[in-house]
Amino acid sequence: MKIALAQLNYHIGNFEANTHKIIEHLGKAKEKGADLVVFAELAVCGYPPRDFLEFEEFISLCEQAALKIAEHCTDIACIIGLPVKNEQLAGKDLFNAAYFIENGQVRSIVRKALLPNYDVFDEYRYFEPATSFECIHFKGKKIALTICEDLWNINNNPLYVSNPMDELILQQPDLMINIAASPFSYCHDDERIVVLAENARKYKLPLLYVNQIGAQTEIIFDGGSMVFDAKGQMLDELPYFKEAIGLYEFKDQHIQHLQPLEHQPVPDIEQIHDALILGIKDYFEKSGFKKAVLGLSGGIDSAIVCALACRALGAENVMAVLMPSKYSTDHSVQDALDLVKNMGCQHEIIPIKEAADAFDQMMAPAFHDLPFNLTEENIQARCRGIVVMAMSNKFGYILLNTSNKSECAVGYGTLYGDMCGAIGVIGDVYKTQVYQLAHYINKDAEVIPENSIVKPPSAELRPGQKDSDSLPDYDILDQILFQYIELKKSSSAIIAQGFDEALVRRIIKMVNTAEFKRYQTPPILRVSPKAFGMGRRMPIVGKYLS
Amino acid sequence: MKIALAQLNYHIGNFEANTHKIIEHLGKAKEKGADLVVFAELAVCGYPPRDFLEFEEFISLCEQAALKIAEHCTDIACIIGLPVKNEQLAGKDLFNAAYFIENGQVRSIVRKALLPNYDVFDEYRYFEPATSFECIHFKGKKIALTICEDLWNINNNPLYVSNPMDELILQQPDLMINIAASPFSYCHDDERIVVLAENARKYKLPLLYVNQIGAQTEIIFDGGSMVFDAKGQMLDELPYFKEAIGLYEFKDQHIQHLQPLEHQPVPDIEQIHDALILGIKDYFEKSGFKKAVLGLSGGIDSAIVCALACRALGAENVMAVLMPSKYSTDHSVQDALDLVKNMGCQHEIIPIKEAADAFDQMMAPAFHDLPFNLTEENIQARCRGIVVMAMSNKFGYILLNTSNKSECAVGYGTLYGDMCGAIGVIGDVYKTQVYQLAHYINKDAEVIPENSIVKPPSAELRPGQKDSDSLPDYDILDQILFQYIELKKSSSAIIAQGFDEALVRRIIKMVNTAEFKRYQTPPILRVSPKAFGMGRRMPIVGKYLS
Repeated sequence: MKIALAQLNYHIGNFEANTHKIIEHLGKAKEKGADLVVFAELAVCGYPPRDFLEFEEFISLCEQAALKIAEHCTDIACIIGLPVKNEQLAGKDLFNAAYFIENGQVRSIVRKALLPNYDVFDEYRYFEPATSFECIHFKGKKIALTICEDLWNINNNPLYVSNPMDELILQQPDLMINIAASPFSYCHDDERIVVLAENARKYKLPLLYVNQIGAQTEIIFDGGSMVFDAKGQMLDELPYFKEAIGLYEFKDQHIQHLQPLEHQPVPDIEQIHDALILGIKDYFEKSGFKKAVLGLSGGIDSAIVCALACRALGAENVMAVLMPSKYSTDHSVQDALDLVKNMGCQHEIIPIKEAADAFDQMMAPAFHDLPFNLTEENIQARCRGIVVMAMSNKFGYILLNTSNKSECAVGYGTLYGDMCGAIGVIGDVYKTQVYQLAHYINKDAEVIPENSIVKPPSAELRPGQKDSDSLPDYDILDQILFQYIELKKSSSAIIAQGFDEALVRRIIKMVNTAEFKRYQTPPILRVSPKAFGMGRRMPIVGKYLS
Repeated sequence: MKIALAQLNYHIGNFEANTHKIIEHLGKAKEKGADLVVFAELAVCGYPPRDFLEFEEFISLCEQAALKIAEHCTDIACIIGLPVKNEQLAGKDLFNAAYFIENGQVRSIVRKALLPNYDVFDEYRYFEPATSFECIHFKGKKIALTICEDLWNINNNPLYVSNPMDELILQQPDLMINIAASPFSYCHDDERIVVLAENARKYKLPLLYVNQIGAQTEIIFDGGSMVFDAKGQMLDELPYFKEAIGLYEFKDQHIQHLQPLEHQPVPDIEQIHDALILGIKDYFEKSGFKKAVLGLSGGIDSAIVCALACRALGAENVMAVLMPSKYSTDHSVQDALDLVKNMGCQHEIIPIKEAADAFDQMMAPAFHDLPFNLTEENIQARCRGIVVMAMSNKFGYILLNTSNKSECAVGYGTLYGDMCGAIGVIGDVYKTQVYQLAHYINKDAEVIPENSIVKPPSAELRPGQKDSDSLPDYDILDQILFQYIELKKSSSAIIAQGFDEALVRRIIKMVNTAEFKRYQTPPILRVSPKAFGMGRRMPIVGKYLS
């Protein structure tokens, strides 16, 4: 039996494009001689369809698309993920399911039992967990098909009280297939390999695993579909961040012709780089936009975002707007121009002094003689927001947000100013990682100007301003933030690691009191195991460590 | 046995305040001669604590607070909601639970089985569902204690496959108690009465039900705690939107001294009015702020928000900023001033022409001679955003957003302009309901100037602009939006009701393409069964009806 794994980039709710792509790959798999081709979890509608699932019409469209796909399954069988109705009255109205299609007919339906409902996942919002399990019969073999999380309940503190494979194994299957929509984080590829290998070993069966690729707003799927032998040894691994199709022969209870291979780990920063580029690219393509605009300050954050955008969209589609304030230094403008030159993108220089002065005048009667403070800094940041949004409105450019995760965390940024944008490119990348990204981007030649990397970070909103006036050193800050945000450590546990107590309490308080700002920030491309946005849901008026 | 129901306003994560309030009400109940006092679901930490629940320290603080409360339960028993650890390895780490405390000791723990995970609810994100059920034994009686949703699985299409009361009834309890955190919507009070009465009838037991009151950012709890006899007749109903304590004597299997009463329905608009005032008040009190600022245009939306804010915070704490553009009419300024006079709040007049002109100049080299369009309208709206945010930053006022639900739905508003604000006051109130609110507010005397009510709505961002240039009549628009948003009807089902096909498709497309805007709007006070925000989660780059 020849099985193809189709690792594809779907688009949520775009039934026409998804169906077309699936049918096209049925054809490709047929050409390669496959008997069965396996598509990912919820491939028909894309993942995550979120509350579209609450519209009956949406569910009908999924069904119609699957039936259209079935028409093309004449000389080939397929497994494909889609939401299906729960025919029982009691329980949620849907299952997260997969069709096994053979000879143009839906032969069996497999339903997901373990529904992830943490971090970015909300599956129990829509789906009823399956309670009965049955192998698929195909060409005299029994396939234990599971959906993503169904294989993930293997650890010391399992999240679920049951294990679908423990049921399926009783039916003596010949091999396992798992279809997934498993999003990227820079540590998730290693976790996946461990979990899948453990399943293969535990159940003593070969395992074929197919994931999606492509970004759906903030969530990025990285692919990396894999094949394991019954000893848990990896036999093949499809590429990351790319569409791909793999063909495998299953015969005599083994995957044929393949030797065990070692996963070649890719450095985190390279993975993040590739993920962000895919994230930008898909945000634009799937929204139907081509051109991006961003504010380019001469600092490292906007330089990185500009470089990534040029790589994702082509430099000719990127407009960098330099908006010096009266406190900006000449070298900032020069650093920004150096980057523009390195990248070859378009640029405009639009100083903001005139507008900032107008606001100072307009506000004077209400402000009386109150001294310059954060208010006037924010006015300048917001003038920049207006300028880039005006470029966006006039020319149809989409604004990229350039805030990094350290700033987002402590609320160091101006709402409706530098926090504007359609998508946050590096909002899940700590400042210390931003420097690593700069070095990675510069590995072959200077792209990010050296001066943008080495100078002390500054928003240039008052004379001689430095980030370090308001914030601890990013080295320390990022370590404390990582403990609190990614690892959810308590303040006492972080202090016990040797960090200054007052500093830890101050930083955690900054994080918690900035929730109101983060609530209104753009979606952020998720590259870490805990990004701001839909994966981290905090009360705003809560009073805890704030 | 005398049972007190304590309907209180908690604050998420504010253990000090919550514990103090609970202990204070233990004392009050003791004075009234109560044997048992019942507090709400998750009373110890407030509802919803969201991802605070993922911090072990937070759970420990809940436990510590409960033990402190227990120390005060010497001559009185209590039932109190809090998250507790799941001692089993498998499954989620927590239960949504209640302590029954007697003689200073935790005598038993009751766990919630049915975990709402729809709309604004995410309980399965944190909690394991209970699978075993046991009555509380107190003073020779058996109490079937359930937590909120546990009684809600009574309908023709039940959301869950089990029913905790079906288990508990086998133990022959003497009465039912349900502790809840059941948020307000203008139809939810009636639903609650139906569901609770049906439970009393089905299980032939008296039922005491306690809810919370108070707003937690967008979610507003309205109270309305109730007591039913074993026939499902309501015997008592605590007030709505107010803290209250009720005392009931249970003897000879009956609640004593009370006659069945009729629920007196309150018109939706009056409920919405009261809910919004509580929502504003609690947002400020729980965030530690006193003063509000808003842009006052002379139109009906900002007039309503100003009036509600004055009622919630006191007129002396409200600053209305009039920001006429060069397209504003004199009557707009006059209408705004009339309202200021009626309410007695502070005001400033800050025309935006100067800033808008500065941007026109600044952008001219980049814009060349491109004609005036939406860009220049947005620049003006964003200049207003800068002005009110400058007032906020300089004086510590908190900005109220004045967008209504019809505008939010179709994206008729400027991101970072009139869509700014810390909290959306009427973002869940359709324009047609805004008019009803105006008439309700004016029922005794003219508060909202008549002219603000009767004139055609306009953003005044170009000469002679009217909402009706871009949008269908609000009467029609709101009907179609209600079908799509609240009722989740398909386009074909809405068209089948007789609405114009092209119009329906255009409106639904406007709703779906405005997701990127709504993602960045402030939290919105929820008064309907389906508000924008955490209760409605849509893909942004999705391609469905868009």
